[in-house]
Amino acid sequence: MGRIDDAIRAIVPPCELAMKETREMLDAKTKPRGSLGRLEELAIRIAGVRGTASIELPRPGLALFAADHGIALEGVSAYPQQVTVEMLRNFARGGAAANVLARHAGAELLVVDVGSRCDSPAPGVLDRRVAPGTRSFLHGPAMTSDELTRALDAGVDAVEELIRRGCDAIAVGEMGIGNTTAASAFAVAFTGVDSEVATGRGTGIDDETLRRKARVVKDACDVHLRDLPSAFDVLARLGGFELAAIAGAVIAGAARRLPVVIDGFPATASALAAVRLAPAAGAYLIAAHRSVEPGHGALLDALGLVPVLDLGLRLGEGTGALLAMPILAAAVRILREMASFQEAGVTDAGR
Amino acid sequence: MGRIDDAIRAIVPPCELAMKETREMLDAKTKPRGSLGRLEELAIRIAGVRGTASIELPRPGLALFAADHGIALEGVSAYPQQVTVEMLRNFARGGAAANVLARHAGAELLVVDVGSRCDSPAPGVLDRRVAPGTRSFLHGPAMTSDELTRALDAGVDAVEELIRRGCDAIAVGEMGIGNTTAASAFAVAFTGVDSEVATGRGTGIDDETLRRKARVVKDACDVHLRDLPSAFDVLARLGGFELAAIAGAVIAGAARRLPVVIDGFPATASALAAVRLAPAAGAYLIAAHRSVEPGHGALLDALGLVPVLDLGLRLGEGTGALLAMPILAAAVRILREMASFQEAGVTDAGR
Repeated sequence: MGRIDDAIRAIVPPCELAMKETREMLDAKTKPRGSLGRLEELAIRIAGVRGTASIELPRPGLALFAADHGIALEGVSAYPQQVTVEMLRNFARGGAAANVLARHAGAELLVVDVGSRCDSPAPGVLDRRVAPGTRSFLHGPAMTSDELTRALDAGVDAVEELIRRGCDAIAVGEMGIGNTTAASAFAVAFTGVDSEVATGRGTGIDDETLRRKARVVKDACDVHLRDLPSAFDVLARLGGFELAAIAGAVIAGAARRLPVVIDGFPATASALAAVRLAPAAGAYLIAAHRSVEPGHGALLDALGLVPVLDLGLRLGEGTGALLAMPILAAAVRILREMASFQEAGVTDAGR
Repeated sequence: MGRIDDAIRAIVPPCELAMKETREMLDAKTKPRGSLGRLEELAIRIAGVRGTASIELPRPGLALFAADHGIALEGVSAYPQQVTVEMLRNFARGGAAANVLARHAGAELLVVDVGSRCDSPAPGVLDRRVAPGTRSFLHGPAMTSDELTRALDAGVDAVEELIRRGCDAIAVGEMGIGNTTAASAFAVAFTGVDSEVATGRGTGIDDETLRRKARVVKDACDVHLRDLPSAFDVLARLGGFELAAIAGAVIAGAARRLPVVIDGFPATASALAAVRLAPAAGAYLIAAHRSVEPGHGALLDALGLVPVLDLGLRLGEGTGALLAMPILAAAVRILREMASFQEAGVTDAGR
């Protein structure tokens, strides 16, 4: 089918030898064994992903995918649908949180319109519109199989573009009014968690809207999950274009042996979809942060990931992934720059 | 007495108006209200500390205090006492974790020897040795009142030196074989937590050493806390010189209206001592990370602080404080650089 299939076939397991060598190098540094905790785990994971213990300081890139959702018209968000297009213009002009935090992380920012309802895409935004928004999954599948393949391929191509721009660590983020409703449905589909647990306040909806949103998720899942669909079909029936693109980017990142740093709730739902399509991709994932969305925990558990940060974020746009990037870079610098006990003439208690 | 008393008297409360203005500015940014969680809280806190909503990107400095401890000779650490001096040389040569992470955070690093057992201090280390290590607090007070005042003043002077070097955000860290034993005794003294709970594995001691360490803490507290001593007397009886210096630095940072980012278990114990000496200093503190030391939670609770990071660290040296610095800087950049709904032409749901 699409380039996504080539990417799925290209994924290999992380390098065990590189991880073992990295563990030994870290144990020789002038600090008690393991005393840098998650930083040491991150260095080891990145070494396994890159296939060498001689890892370079990561040059991060954020693939920020945006699209519109038919489900937004069911009154599930605090914001009107037009905000997706308005935010695409905001990204293009550099004023959004993602822009600020990308500059802060020294990250390349690639904004991809995978299917907003704009008339013409904002300058500087990669135009990969599949359609002007998905259809409402309350009234049928959100997209066709062909549309899904095109959205997945947009994710693959975004990673290739970031690699062309010199990036070797990929952050994935999303923007799209209504997309936490789709992500909640993913959580139900892929983890079996109850729709009430999977549904949260997203951008900040009130109690009544939350009840409506949870009912939408339940009704959609009752219809679309009845025949135990494949991961591909779940993505097509309940997905958003930007959520599918993230799944494509996760798979492409894994295929290119890059660490893939996943943002909050919708991005994690997409990453889990990716791992259901391509189980070997899971070893390439780093969870950036724990979202306040109640369904996020079930997704992280299903992926076996513990997030790097827990900052009470619920914005999306890849903001959490960008905030985690300096921590990843710190882990690599510890491995590269710290002196060993022998080099520094420090007594090693050998523990 | 020392310069510490002037600093205590100079502390004023944070500026409520600056915090209110910052809250309003953040609410006008193109994101759902409060959706950047801790980042928004940090920006507000820094604005209150600095006394203005027009905060600059912080220029961080780490005051890293080292000293030796008589209690180390009671067999409470995995490492021999000489490692304190060896690590001071490692700091001077740039090979320790603190050096690597200071470079990573763009932080000025000021290493202060407040009382190691070295013959001559390493080049580049500020020599403020009070004595060649404290006395064992199993056999009497760790230091005299005069020694304590000199150690507190060393902390004040370190902050002044960092300010001279252009810093406007202070991180505090420590190094000293045996100092988690003193910090555990502080935790008992200042929070009333049981000595068993307050005592952890420090650099990585085995079960037998852990039992010995807990007994040392209990015996020392039984003797030294019987007469309900003042915070000053707790510091003198159970302290280390570097722990007292951190308390001095915390108070000096608060007096100079700078955010003071505290590292792990010993630094937090010192910060709590500082707040007992100068309650108004508490509003200037930011807890960088949650240590794996079991007594850390009681200290954080007593200070009313929730750490920014939770990375399983147990190294000290200010490493956690340095890792939190990019998060602080990100918070400030969000406030300074993000567009408002009005500027960006994005529809505000007003929530």
